[in-house]
Amino acid sequence: MAKRSFPLSKVYQLLEPGPVVMVTTARAGRPNIMTMSWYTMMEFEPPLVGCVISNRNTSFDILKRTRECVMNIPTRELGKEAVGCGNTSGRKVDKFAAFHLTPKAGAVVKAPLIDECYASLECRVVDARMVEKYNFFILEVVKAWIDPSKKDPRTIHHRGRGLFTVDGRTIRLASRVK
Amino acid sequence: MAKRSFPLSKVYQLLEPGPVVMVTTARAGRPNIMTMSWYTMMEFEPPLVGCVISNRNTSFDILKRTRECVMNIPTRELGKEAVGCGNTSGRKVDKFAAFHLTPKAGAVVKAPLIDECYASLECRVVDARMVEKYNFFILEVVKAWIDPSKKDPRTIHHRGRGLFTVDGRTIRLASRVK
Repeated sequence: MAKRSFPLSKVYQLLEPGPVVMVTTARAGRPNIMTMSWYTMMEFEPPLVGCVISNRNTSFDILKRTRECVMNIPTRELGKEAVGCGNTSGRKVDKFAAFHLTPKAGAVVKAPLIDECYASLECRVVDARMVEKYNFFILEVVKAWIDPSKKDPRTIHHRGRGLFTVDGRTIRLASRVK
Repeated sequence: MAKRSFPLSKVYQLLEPGPVVMVTTARAGRPNIMTMSWYTMMEFEPPLVGCVISNRNTSFDILKRTRECVMNIPTRELGKEAVGCGNTSGRKVDKFAAFHLTPKAGAVVKAPLIDECYASLECRVVDARMVEKYNFFILEVVKAWIDPSKKDPRTIHHRGRGLFTVDGRTIRLASRVK
């Protein structure tokens, strides 16, 4: 997959709908993947994203140390892999190998992009003050990538206990909001 | 509409998919409505929700003072009203009147429920430490309501500049995650 650079000013358009994302981290050259839904946009530009990552996850420790990750957005076709990464622990499993995913080098951070995801956002932790109390990290998206060949990506949204909503149709409403 | 009490332990199932919500506040008996997409779950139970509300909004001032609000979840049928509330300012417009919405008294907080929304979550601000820097409030959901007659509510997800994704079909994947 040949991803292209995507404007940072438009990152909110990818995340604001709330799709399930797959967060990659890396330590000592060993990458990990975590599936996540608890995040929100916090600023348009530079794009800030707040996210909760449980301190029971391997990714929590790696993110806290390296202060770098990539938010990758899977489409419905990768639902099984996204769920698989949520069901397993990076302490025991090499998730890229187990789920036949391809790590690809980013431009800024050391955590890898997931090649199969239609969009990837390289992030740095810019505020860790809420980590101790809420496991809440504030990330800045420093580089964004998208697969321009995916014309109508349908993402998935987590409803708990194995249920997911798939994106339906797109509608236009007379909003004057950015 | 006759809403029923909904378990606080299941609130994450309503918010985690990331639908557009309509936030109501009230001051001196005067209610207001704001449309919002920048929020995330932060804890299961008691349910904590983090949200960004711009300090340019009337709702910001009211929330900061009263420390109470209601997150109401509209379905696709209320898309026009949700967008209308986003396009207008509570300083100039009585939004309940302008968009023919019905305020209904909650059980705990003074901000009203929007009767037409299929779910309503009464909230209290429990942490305002990130408000100054990020306009980020941490809310606790103290009482939740749902319309049990809505069997398959289809919500909307904001993609920016007037585009919204409507919920499509529901799929089940073998997730072991809560």
